[in-house]
Amino acid sequence: MDDEQATAEVRARIEESFARQGLMRHLGARLAHVAPGRVHIVLPNRPEVTQQHGYIHAGATSAIADSAGGYAGFTLFPENSSVLTVEYKINLLAPASGDYLEAVGTVLKPGRTLTICNLEVFAIQGDQRTLIATGQQTLICMNGKPDR
Amino acid sequence: MDDEQATAEVRARIEESFARQGLMRHLGARLAHVAPGRVHIVLPNRPEVTQQHGYIHAGATSAIADSAGGYAGFTLFPENSSVLTVEYKINLLAPASGDYLEAVGTVLKPGRTLTICNLEVFAIQGDQRTLIATGQQTLICMNGKPDR
Amino acid sequence: MDDEQATAEVRARIEESFARQGLMRHLGARLAHVAPGRVHIVLPNRPEVTQQHGYIHAGATSAIADSAGGYAGFTLFPENSSVLTVEYKINLLAPASGDYLEAVGTVLKPGRTLTICNLEVFAIQGDQRTLIATGQQTLICMNGKPDR
Amino acid sequence: MDDEQATAEVRARIEESFARQGLMRHLGARLAHVAPGRVHIVLPNRPEVTQQHGYIHAGATSAIADSAGGYAGFTLFPENSSVLTVEYKINLLAPASGDYLEAVGTVLKPGRTLTICNLEVFAIQGDQRTLIATGQQTLICMNGKPDR
Repeated sequence: MDDEQATAEVRARIEESFARQGLMRHLGARLAHVAPGRVHIVLPNRPEVTQQHGYIHAGATSAIADSAGGYAGFTLFPENSSVLTVEYKINLLAPASGDYLEAVGTVLKPGRTLTICNLEVFAIQGDQRTLIATGQQTLICMNGKPDR
Repeated sequence: MDDEQATAEVRARIEESFARQGLMRHLGARLAHVAPGRVHIVLPNRPEVTQQHGYIHAGATSAIADSAGGYAGFTLFPENSSVLTVEYKINLLAPASGDYLEAVGTVLKPGRTLTICNLEVFAIQGDQRTLIATGQQTLICMNGKPDR
Repeated sequence: MDDEQATAEVRARIEESFARQGLMRHLGARLAHVAPGRVHIVLPNRPEVTQQHGYIHAGATSAIADSAGGYAGFTLFPENSSVLTVEYKINLLAPASGDYLEAVGTVLKPGRTLTICNLEVFAIQGDQRTLIATGQQTLICMNGKPDR
Repeated sequence: MDDEQATAEVRARIEESFARQGLMRHLGARLAHVAPGRVHIVLPNRPEVTQQHGYIHAGATSAIADSAGGYAGFTLFPENSSVLTVEYKINLLAPASGDYLEAVGTVLKPGRTLTICNLEVFAIQGDQRTLIATGQQTLICMNGKPDR
C-alpha cells in the first residue's frame, strides 16, 4: 500500500507546509508518507506527549490525526489553495502506548469545496500495530488563498 | 461565573493530575480555574503551537479542550477513580489567533459510567474574547482505578 | 425567549419548505417556532416513532434535531438559496419518553458558506422538560439554488 | 462478503427486536442481513422519507444507520443484555436518491461496556451503488437488562 507516491510537486508542497507547522515540530512528529489522498504522520512516544497515566494524550493523538487528514485532502487540492479543518470527531479505542503512533488520513470523498477524510491512528510496539483511534474529518478548500 | 470554586480536596486532586500531563506542560498550558463540573485551561500563543499559516493548530486547540472537559468531569467523579476520553467532536469556528486561548469544559450530563461535556475554546486578544471552537465530549469513569 | 419571531417572509419560506419534507409529515412532526437563527420542532410520542424498548428511537430524535438545525440556519440564508446538512453529531443523554419531544436548533456561528448549529432535544411530560439529546451540526448554504 | 451469517439464535434475537422498532416499520425499513458484528438495513425510497428537495431526509438516512450499528453491536453482546446508542456522528456525502438505501453497521471495536461501530449508507439505483453517508457510533451494553 505504501509504495504509491504523490508526485514530486505535491510532496514538495506538503513537506514545505508541514515544516511550517510549529506544533508538529514541537511534538516531534514527522511526515512519514504522502500518497494521493493519503498521508501518514509518525509521533514518537516521549514524556512530552503524555497524559496523567503515562499514555499518549488524546490531544497529541488528535493533533497528528488532524494534520494527516488535512494534508491527505491537500494532496488533491488545486495548486493555488489552502486547507482548513472545519470539524472532526475522534473515538479513542484503546490507551495509546508503544514506541510510536502512526496517524493515517485518507480522503473518503473529495470535493470542490468540502472534502471528507477518514482518520486512523495506530500504536506501534515492535512488530505489533494496534488501532487506537478512529475519526472522521471535514475539510474546506480555500481557493485562491495559497498555503503560504 | 468564575468565582465558584471546587473544594480544596478536588482542586488538589486535579492540579496534581494536570501536573502529570506531559503534553500540557510541553505545550505551555496551565490550569486556570477549577469549579464543580467546569474547568478552564489557558494556552499562550507561541510558535510552538502553530499550524502552517501561523494560527494556533487545531490539534493544540483540541488538546486543551479535551483536557478541560476531562477534568471538568473528573471534578464530579468519586475519589478512587480515573477519567478517560471515549470520544469527542470539535468544530473549528474561526482561525485561532490572539494572545492566548482559553478552553472551558463544562459537564452537561454527569453519570455513574458516562459523562457528557460541552467544550468551548475562546481566543483572547486584549479585551476581545472570540469563540473559536465548540465541541462535545464523552468521558468514562474508571471506578476503582485511582488516577495515580 | 419564544416571543422573538422571524419576519413573516422568512416564516412563510420555512413553513412552505417544511411542508415539503415528507419525512416530517410522516413522523407527525410540526414546526413549533421560527425565530431568527432558532427553530423549534415538536414530535408527539406515538408507537410509530419508537425503538425496541418503547422509547422514542434515536433516529426520530435525530431527524427532528437535524431539521430544526437546518431551518435555524435557513432563517439567516439569503432568499435565493437552499440548505444542506454537511454532518452532525448527537449524544443521546437519556431515554426519550414523555408526551412529546421538542427539538431546538440554534445557530452558533453563521457564515457565507458554512453555518454551525447547536442541537438540543427535550422530552416533555406534563410540566417536566428534560434534555435528552444534544448535538452539533454543520450546514452548507447552496447559493443560487432556490429551495424549490 | 454477505454470505457470512450470524447463528440462528442471534438472528432470531435481532429479528425479534427489530420487529419491535415502531420507527423502522413506519419508515418501511427492513433487516437485510445479520452477520456477526455487521448488520444491513434497507430503506425503500418513498415520499414518506423525503426532505424538501425530494431527496431522502438525513433523518431517515441516520435512523437506519443508527439501527444498523446498534444491531451490529448487539450481535456480539451477551444474551441477557440490551443495547443503547451513546452517540453518533454522520457525514452526508451526497444527496440520497435512487431506488433504496442500504445502511451497513460494522463493529470496529467491541467492548464489555462500550462498542464502537462504523456506519455506511449506500444509495442503490439499478446496478449503481453510491456511498452517500458515513459515520461513527458509540454503543453501550446494558448487562442484566434483557432486550425485552
